[in-house]
Amino acid sequence: MIGYAFMGKAHSNAWRNVASFFDVPAFEQKVLVGRDAGQVAASAARYGWAEYATDWRSVLERDDIHIVDICAPGWMHAEIAVAALAAGKHVLVEKPLANTLAEAEAMTAAARSARKYGVQSMIGFNYRRVPALALARELIAEGRLGTVRHIRAAYLQDWLSDEESPMTWRLNKETAGSGALGDIASHAIDQVLFLLGDAVTEVSGRLHTFVNSRPGADGTEEVTVDDAAWATLTLAGGAIASVEVSRMATGRKNALTLEIYGDKGSLLFDLEAINELGFLDATLPVREQGFRRILVNEPEHPYVAAWWPQGHVLGWEHTFTHEIRDFLTAIDGGTPPSPSFEDGLAVQRVLAAVEESANAKSALIQVTHPLTEGA
Amino acid sequence: MIGYAFMGKAHSNAWRNVASFFDVPAFEQKVLVGRDAGQVAASAARYGWAEYATDWRSVLERDDIHIVDICAPGWMHAEIAVAALAAGKHVLVEKPLANTLAEAEAMTAAARSARKYGVQSMIGFNYRRVPALALARELIAEGRLGTVRHIRAAYLQDWLSDEESPMTWRLNKETAGSGALGDIASHAIDQVLFLLGDAVTEVSGRLHTFVNSRPGADGTEEVTVDDAAWATLTLAGGAIASVEVSRMATGRKNALTLEIYGDKGSLLFDLEAINELGFLDATLPVREQGFRRILVNEPEHPYVAAWWPQGHVLGWEHTFTHEIRDFLTAIDGGTPPSPSFEDGLAVQRVLAAVEESANAKSALIQVTHPLTEGA
Amino acid sequence: MIGYAFMGKAHSNAWRNVASFFDVPAFEQKVLVGRDAGQVAASAARYGWAEYATDWRSVLERDDIHIVDICAPGWMHAEIAVAALAAGKHVLVEKPLANTLAEAEAMTAAARSARKYGVQSMIGFNYRRVPALALARELIAEGRLGTVRHIRAAYLQDWLSDEESPMTWRLNKETAGSGALGDIASHAIDQVLFLLGDAVTEVSGRLHTFVNSRPGADGTEEVTVDDAAWATLTLAGGAIASVEVSRMATGRKNALTLEIYGDKGSLLFDLEAINELGFLDATLPVREQGFRRILVNEPEHPYVAAWWPQGHVLGWEHTFTHEIRDFLTAIDGGTPPSPSFEDGLAVQRVLAAVEESANAKSALIQVTHPLTEGA
Amino acid sequence: MIGYAFMGKAHSNAWRNVASFFDVPAFEQKVLVGRDAGQVAASAARYGWAEYATDWRSVLERDDIHIVDICAPGWMHAEIAVAALAAGKHVLVEKPLANTLAEAEAMTAAARSARKYGVQSMIGFNYRRVPALALARELIAEGRLGTVRHIRAAYLQDWLSDEESPMTWRLNKETAGSGALGDIASHAIDQVLFLLGDAVTEVSGRLHTFVNSRPGADGTEEVTVDDAAWATLTLAGGAIASVEVSRMATGRKNALTLEIYGDKGSLLFDLEAINELGFLDATLPVREQGFRRILVNEPEHPYVAAWWPQGHVLGWEHTFTHEIRDFLTAIDGGTPPSPSFEDGLAVQRVLAAVEESANAKSALIQVTHPLTEGA
Repeated sequence: MIGYAFMGKAHSNAWRNVASFFDVPAFEQKVLVGRDAGQVAASAARYGWAEYATDWRSVLERDDIHIVDICAPGWMHAEIAVAALAAGKHVLVEKPLANTLAEAEAMTAAARSARKYGVQSMIGFNYRRVPALALARELIAEGRLGTVRHIRAAYLQDWLSDEESPMTWRLNKETAGSGALGDIASHAIDQVLFLLGDAVTEVSGRLHTFVNSRPGADGTEEVTVDDAAWATLTLAGGAIASVEVSRMATGRKNALTLEIYGDKGSLLFDLEAINELGFLDATLPVREQGFRRILVNEPEHPYVAAWWPQGHVLGWEHTFTHEIRDFLTAIDGGTPPSPSFEDGLAVQRVLAAVEESANAKSALIQVTHPLTEGA
Repeated sequence: MIGYAFMGKAHSNAWRNVASFFDVPAFEQKVLVGRDAGQVAASAARYGWAEYATDWRSVLERDDIHIVDICAPGWMHAEIAVAALAAGKHVLVEKPLANTLAEAEAMTAAARSARKYGVQSMIGFNYRRVPALALARELIAEGRLGTVRHIRAAYLQDWLSDEESPMTWRLNKETAGSGALGDIASHAIDQVLFLLGDAVTEVSGRLHTFVNSRPGADGTEEVTVDDAAWATLTLAGGAIASVEVSRMATGRKNALTLEIYGDKGSLLFDLEAINELGFLDATLPVREQGFRRILVNEPEHPYVAAWWPQGHVLGWEHTFTHEIRDFLTAIDGGTPPSPSFEDGLAVQRVLAAVEESANAKSALIQVTHPLTEGA
Repeated sequence: MIGYAFMGKAHSNAWRNVASFFDVPAFEQKVLVGRDAGQVAASAARYGWAEYATDWRSVLERDDIHIVDICAPGWMHAEIAVAALAAGKHVLVEKPLANTLAEAEAMTAAARSARKYGVQSMIGFNYRRVPALALARELIAEGRLGTVRHIRAAYLQDWLSDEESPMTWRLNKETAGSGALGDIASHAIDQVLFLLGDAVTEVSGRLHTFVNSRPGADGTEEVTVDDAAWATLTLAGGAIASVEVSRMATGRKNALTLEIYGDKGSLLFDLEAINELGFLDATLPVREQGFRRILVNEPEHPYVAAWWPQGHVLGWEHTFTHEIRDFLTAIDGGTPPSPSFEDGLAVQRVLAAVEESANAKSALIQVTHPLTEGA
Repeated sequence: MIGYAFMGKAHSNAWRNVASFFDVPAFEQKVLVGRDAGQVAASAARYGWAEYATDWRSVLERDDIHIVDICAPGWMHAEIAVAALAAGKHVLVEKPLANTLAEAEAMTAAARSARKYGVQSMIGFNYRRVPALALARELIAEGRLGTVRHIRAAYLQDWLSDEESPMTWRLNKETAGSGALGDIASHAIDQVLFLLGDAVTEVSGRLHTFVNSRPGADGTEEVTVDDAAWATLTLAGGAIASVEVSRMATGRKNALTLEIYGDKGSLLFDLEAINELGFLDATLPVREQGFRRILVNEPEHPYVAAWWPQGHVLGWEHTFTHEIRDFLTAIDGGTPPSPSFEDGLAVQRVLAAVEESANAKSALIQVTHPLTEGA
């Protein structure tokens, strides 16, 4: 595993625990890689890795390494992933796939090539493994919503609400690529694609920076990424999705909220209440219709049987355990894990279109879906 | 109508508006009766009454008066109601039926006699006319909950939470009969009986006064009624209900909450969200079970078609309009309105048993149900 | 009053009851006007009007008529309102102000002229009189949210969700002007303007019709208005509002929802829970911050003291009672009631800009605010 | 650790992960003990234990074992705990402390003796480590609720709702001691004691079995424990708590709900929404009072800083990680961990009083608090 910060901690937790709950092929937590030898050594010890290293290239050369989990910052994804795939390692990469569309395309091409040789790859959209959202996808796929027309997706946080909150690399376009757009709209858009199994054809977008400068180490610095983003997406199947994300929605901590309205039913979700799914079945008699709060914590629900008895709820980190479980199971079965780099690229293209539209006064932009490009 | 305070205002509103929404027999708002001539005159003008009077006895002698609505304080109910029934007037009396069990029994006997001559009577448990609770009763009667086992009924308010809140007649046993018990537990207990269509056979009760004295007009005065009450009720059909009421539940304003658990389903209600009913259908697949929030505001729901389009919600006062509508319709049809004085008496007997048990260290007390007494 | 359908019923209820709750100048419910003599006669009797008439022009000539309440369809607003103002009658007109921008401008000009002679006018955005929203405005005006950045406004209904639901005049552009846009986005946009006391400078919009034809009286007919609309609005003060409305959001009955995020606090509202306001105070210690559910039903809250004790909740129709109360009070005091026709025109201009943007592939459109035009 | 079933799995998870998140003294997961050699071997491997054993007595003799974590069934607690303490091992025992009051007293005596020699002990009421409940205790201790008057505690589950659900050892008084009472009322009562830091002086109780026989391996068997229990508790400080627990509350999965009402504020909690605490501050202006939903997921909240960024919510299992962390920290510091066996005994005495009262027609029973007995 490469990277030991927030995502490194979360992925380590998943690797450390997955085999205690799920039947997965045997594996060992071999090497944790990071730039700072002291910190990576401490993290390796703390998070259950047998060794540590500071040079990811040399680790890729080892024969006893079969899987590479990339939790490094986005701008490093492409180089590491392409090299790892070339070295025949299965690759899991954190989202977003890359900071630029060009990198994402190169990674996807590398993944396709590698796949022919049985070398697998996966993009870490962990929220696909929230049991409530996995259940949502099942219900939609079974036709329980009928024709889906509206999706309202939002991802609202507030950690930048204070305008005195300091400048960081995340607020600089060169290091971060974008702001709320790449960081959290990517999750919201991936959910739209995942839940509907559909593709975006058209985008109108808008970006805004509410606080244009912030205190830096050496005085005031300019914020060069978006604080918030808005978009409407046309889906190939005829639905329209609105997307709104912000890091300034005071009081919203991690509110990825989804509302999906079909002609036979509707679904509601809020990541802050991760164990719940709202479902309205419009085929029931009107007299008894209503949004029901399903506590997605029964053995009948995706992933849940492996954990605790009903009503003993799960948390955010479990999504990574599920992700690693599915990744290992797919590799073991010789099948491509999902979501693929293509799925990651599809999200990147929508993000790029939002940015392009925002630069064109929000005018609608066509999106060519990668899966139509003859993979 | 006799009485022009809180209940007088609420009943007047219902009389003034019922014919604008429901098809009811024609009637006129004739006379408002109260002790203070000036105030009753002003109230009559304000609330739509053609005349006012200060002597209820003389009004009972008038031939052009056919209905008497008693909104006077509880200690006056028995005398007025018995006289009105004897005078051949249909009677609607606010809850509780009376301050003492003896009065309630006398009133019920009078109502039974009068009924033989086509003179009708009704006790004003207005929450039976909340559309959500009327729907709840329908669902239970249809067997949607299966065998009901648990009922959790509470009525929580907080207007006495401040211990400096002054002494009033409501806190004196002589004038009020009891405290939270008669005032709000009566509603909670009536709902248990109404929703289940069942009778209480056994009671364990507890009463408590948290603030034993309060500032009065002439210095500190002793509070002689309960601030809060607890009870468990055994129902003839095998269910057990818990009841908890308080005027000191800080933050609860008018929270009559009901939870009803059967082996096939459950219901939830909170009067502060009067337009909603929670319903869980346990006969659905486990995967999709959950409490649904039914917005009880569709034409298919009880009483609602008369009002506004779906989702244009109703308030507290509408329960009285529904009550008057049902009262008028029953009289017009020559059938006894419901709930009857017998229903009011049944509640009184449970209240008396709670008090008796509380005086006997909460030991269980048998309750003889009035309907078994050979009416 | 002109018109006796849905809005006529709601306004009549307000006129019939306002004086029972509020101290308003004396008035009489004189004449109800409608085209169908039989129906208007029945409605007049039912709703408390002394007389009825079928020709609104002749009623405008009467000296004993001082106020005209226009509840007729939108395409009739301009003609009646201009004539009524010219006849020296105070005018209340239901929203939207008019079906076209030209009509709205003519009405506003007429209102300005009349105002000079003490003839008042008001547009019926009744949701400004929801106690929770009036409280929201107070909190914002007091600076409790600090700098407002984000507003998320939606109005979701589902009465057109069924594609077999028949064609009506409301789905025909000629008679209705627009669909969800004029009908419900108007409310959402008015709330943005009302709550922030701000003006819209720029709009990106999108309209969509999900069901393009419906069964009509003589076979399939084309739907020529929008089923749903999306917009982002730039406000002069720097905030950005998103607006999303639909008549096809299955399970949403009357969900005007508002989320307002400032740097010091945030507010939440949902019309389906009309008695509640969500408020987060970000100036409190982080440890105890959270969205609180204020039950806006205390004497301290706008309009509430006139009604019932705390926790005895109000419904949808009460907004009109408050509106009539404020209208009468303003007329009595010789001051212009609010919201004015100018306020109605401001909303119309935003609606027109949404439509213009929608026709220009969602590209941003500048909006000139009417108040800057030297009224 | 002794026991590898549900609690064994949960405790193992905590031992396996605690050092990855918290700074705790170094330790090793040495031996897992269970009766079935095959199963305990598999569980040891799966849950991260270096060895396994089938005889707990021989393990107690080992010098390299310093801590014993007892997750065996309740009827084994006393024997193992007393032996382990005598052997100088620190002991953590799952709740309830024991199946009988006599056993609990013996264990508490042993714990007191051992404590003199620096041998520590702890009872595993893990819900004291829910961050929201730890925060609740802080707020109460700081006086934010003022004088607490009412507590409403309930623990509702539904896994016995189906009357065809089979007989198990948990439904047999000989093996289980009691039903819902010992299993879940113990948690509810411990929370009352924990949150208020108070003691119970008086109890009225009631027990009921709704389904008296169930299908067993050899035909119908009698259920000899309670399905549900009700109690009111008088607290030394003057508050009154109601407790209601059931395994037949259809739709409630793991609903430990708490409502605490003081004269200055109130608190709400539901274990199914484990990351949230409801708080009403009655010292704020009435106009802005309301129950706020605190997402207890900020670094400022108990235990949370060790985990993930704000809004990345925790689950049920984390309570054990916190418990182990506090246990290790206390041992390391040479201080008695909390809750102690005395705390466990206090709960047992209340449970015994509930049973005694239930057998005496719910009449109030005095409870002598163990801490007053001159420890």
